[in-house]
Amino acid sequence: MDERYMEQAIELAGLGRGKTYTNPLVGAVIVKDGVILATGYHSKYGDKHAEKMAVDQCESPEEMIDATIYVTLEPCNHTEKQPPCTQMIIDSGISKVVIAQLDPNPVVAGKGKAYLESQGIQVVSGILQEKAEALNKHYNYFHRRKRPYIVLKQAVSLDGKLSIDPSQRTYLTGEETYKKVREERQYYQAILTGSRTILADDPKLLPNVITDFPPVRIILDRRGQALDFEKYQIYQEAVPVWVFTKNDSIANTPEHVRLIPDQYWTIPKVVDYLQKEGIQSVYVEGGSKIHDAFLAENKFEEVITYISPKLIGGNGVPAFYSDRKVSSVMPLALQSVEAVGEDIRIVSRRGKKDVYRVDSGSRDSQENQKSKPAY
Amino acid sequence: MDERYMEQAIELAGLGRGKTYTNPLVGAVIVKDGVILATGYHSKYGDKHAEKMAVDQCESPEEMIDATIYVTLEPCNHTEKQPPCTQMIIDSGISKVVIAQLDPNPVVAGKGKAYLESQGIQVVSGILQEKAEALNKHYNYFHRRKRPYIVLKQAVSLDGKLSIDPSQRTYLTGEETYKKVREERQYYQAILTGSRTILADDPKLLPNVITDFPPVRIILDRRGQALDFEKYQIYQEAVPVWVFTKNDSIANTPEHVRLIPDQYWTIPKVVDYLQKEGIQSVYVEGGSKIHDAFLAENKFEEVITYISPKLIGGNGVPAFYSDRKVSSVMPLALQSVEAVGEDIRIVSRRGKKDVYRVDSGSRDSQENQKSKPAY
Repeated sequence: MDERYMEQAIELAGLGRGKTYTNPLVGAVIVKDGVILATGYHSKYGDKHAEKMAVDQCESPEEMIDATIYVTLEPCNHTEKQPPCTQMIIDSGISKVVIAQLDPNPVVAGKGKAYLESQGIQVVSGILQEKAEALNKHYNYFHRRKRPYIVLKQAVSLDGKLSIDPSQRTYLTGEETYKKVREERQYYQAILTGSRTILADDPKLLPNVITDFPPVRIILDRRGQALDFEKYQIYQEAVPVWVFTKNDSIANTPEHVRLIPDQYWTIPKVVDYLQKEGIQSVYVEGGSKIHDAFLAENKFEEVITYISPKLIGGNGVPAFYSDRKVSSVMPLALQSVEAVGEDIRIVSRRGKKDVYRVDSGSRDSQENQKSKPAY
Repeated sequence: MDERYMEQAIELAGLGRGKTYTNPLVGAVIVKDGVILATGYHSKYGDKHAEKMAVDQCESPEEMIDATIYVTLEPCNHTEKQPPCTQMIIDSGISKVVIAQLDPNPVVAGKGKAYLESQGIQVVSGILQEKAEALNKHYNYFHRRKRPYIVLKQAVSLDGKLSIDPSQRTYLTGEETYKKVREERQYYQAILTGSRTILADDPKLLPNVITDFPPVRIILDRRGQALDFEKYQIYQEAVPVWVFTKNDSIANTPEHVRLIPDQYWTIPKVVDYLQKEGIQSVYVEGGSKIHDAFLAENKFEEVITYISPKLIGGNGVPAFYSDRKVSSVMPLALQSVEAVGEDIRIVSRRGKKDVYRVDSGSRDSQENQKSKPAY
C-alpha cells in the first residue's frame, strides 16, 4: 500500500523536471483511511515545496488529522525561500510521514526526520528509495560526493573521429541527434567546452528551451583566444558565459560574461570552482583534448556517445586524443543503447554495471574477461 | 501458393550454410496437386545439387510427371562436379520450374532458364527473389560485381581506439565477442590482416570450426617481417596462409604457405589477385593502417564494428588512422545494432540504406541532413 502511494508521489515529482534548477524534484501524496486527500509537487525553483502544495490543497484542516503524507524526499527543516516543511506538517495534524529518500543536502540530511520524530510523528523511510533517487541523479551525487556530476558527450564517426580537420566543424550526426543534444543540455547546470571548439565551430551551446535558469556555458580558454564578444555566437544571447582564462580583464566584457582569471587552470581547479559555485551537473562538449584532460584527471562520471555511421580515417581528428602516454584502459558500464535518427546513442557510466538492453535481447550479468584468448 | 513452397525451399537452402564453399546455398521443393513430393538442398561442396536431391527422393519416377519444382536459384546448365540440373529436370517429367533468383555466375546466367524454356518447360522466375538473394550475399556480389565482398572488422573502445600502444595487443572486447568473431570468420573465404597485427598480437585467425574449406588467411607483409614460420601461431595449423610480400622465396616455406611476391603491393592489386583466385568474400581484421588503406582505395562493402565500453584516450592507437590527409566523410547505412555480451556490434554498409532496429524502436526512412544547424 505504501508503495502504491509512493509510486504516485514519484510520478508527481517528475512534473517539475527541468524547472527546479538546483532544487530537487519532490512529490507528495496525503492519504487518510485509504483515500487520497491531496497531492503536490515542487513545480518550479522558488515556488512551494511539494508537501506545502499538498497540504494547501486539502479542503479543510480537520481532514488532515491522523492522515499520512507520502513524500519522495525527506521534508526540509530549515528556512530558505520557504518555511520549513517539518513544522508545517506537524501543525497540519498529519501523524505519519513516509519518506522514500533522506535528503543528502547537508542543510537537511536527517535533521528533518529527526525533528519530526522528536515531535511525536511516526516516520518511515526507504520506501521505493532507489526509484526516488533516480529523480535527482545530479542533486544526490553533488551533495553526497561534493562535486558536480560530469558527463562527457562526444559525437563521433564509426572510426571514432570528431572531424576531418581540427580547424573546422564536420557535420557528422544528423538532425535528430542535434535536437536530442539541445534537449539534453537543459538538464545540466553547466555546458563546458574549450576555446578550440568555439574557434572551429562557433556554437551557441544553448538548450532547446531557455528557462529562468538556463545552464551556464563555460569556456576553458587559457590564452583568451575566444574572447571576441562581438564575433562568437556564444556571447550573443544574454545567458551566462563563464570563461576560465589567464586574461585579467577585458574592456567591454558584457554583463552576462564572467571572466575567471588564473595563470594556469587545470581540470581539478575548474571542477573545484564549479563545486563551490553550487554547479551540480556539467555536460562537457569538448574536443579531443578537453575530453582527454577530463579522462586523464579522472573527473567524470558518465560518457554519452553519439555515433554516426560514417568513416573518416586518415589524419582525421580522433576523439579523446592528446600526446599523453596512456598505460591503462578505463572500463565503463553500458547503461543504454538506442537509435536517434540515423545515429546511435550510447550511455556508459563508471562504477556499477547496470542492466542494459539493445536490440538482440537483454543481458543482466557481467563477467570480467578472465582468459586472454589467442585470437 | 508459389510463395509458400518457395519459402520452404529457402529454409532448406539455409541448411547448407558454411558447407558449400564457393557454391551457392540452394533449396528445392517438388509439388504436385498441392502435395509436396520431395525436397532437397545443396548440403556440401561437391555433393548433389538441391534439384537432384529432391528428384532422387521421389518414390517413383511416374509421380513427377507434370509436377512443379520450386528452386531458390536458377538450375545449372553446365557439367562440373555434377551433371546439369536442367536436363535432369526435363528427363524427370517435371513440367514447370519456379525460380526465385537467376544465377549471376556467368557459366549459368540465364542459360539454364533459356534451355528449360526451349525444351517446353514452363518457367516462372522472381518469386521471393530478394529473400533468396540474401542466402548468397557474397556469391551474388562476387559474380555481379566481379570482385570479392570485403568486410572491414574493427574492435574499438568507446573513443575509437584499437589499443594502448601499437606494439602489443590490448584486450578490449569480451569473451562473447571473441566467440562471435570466430564464428563470423567461417562465413568468409579469406581473413586478411597486416604484418603489424601478426607481430603485435600473434593471432591464429582461425574460425571456430575448421571445415574442409577453411578461409585462407592472408597477410599483407611487404617487408617480410612476419615470415618466421616457427615463431608465429598463424603458421602452426596446416590451413592455407597467403603472404603478399616482396620476398621472392624463403627456405623451408611450409606447404600450406603461399608467398605472393611483388615489389610493391597495393590494395587494388591484392583485391584483383583475390578476385582471380575466386575468393568471393574477405573479412579484414586489420590495424589502423590496413583499414585506412581499404577505405582510401574504396575497396570495401561493409564495416562490422565491435565497441567495448572502455576509454583509452591519450596517444592510444586510433582506428582507421594514417598520415593521409582526408577531405571527405564516407557515409554508410546502419544495418543492425546488437549487444554481444558487454560489447555492442554494429553492422553498416555502403549504398542503400536498409531498415535497422535498435532498442528504442525502429526506423525505416532516412533523410539527408539538409540544414547545418548552429549547435
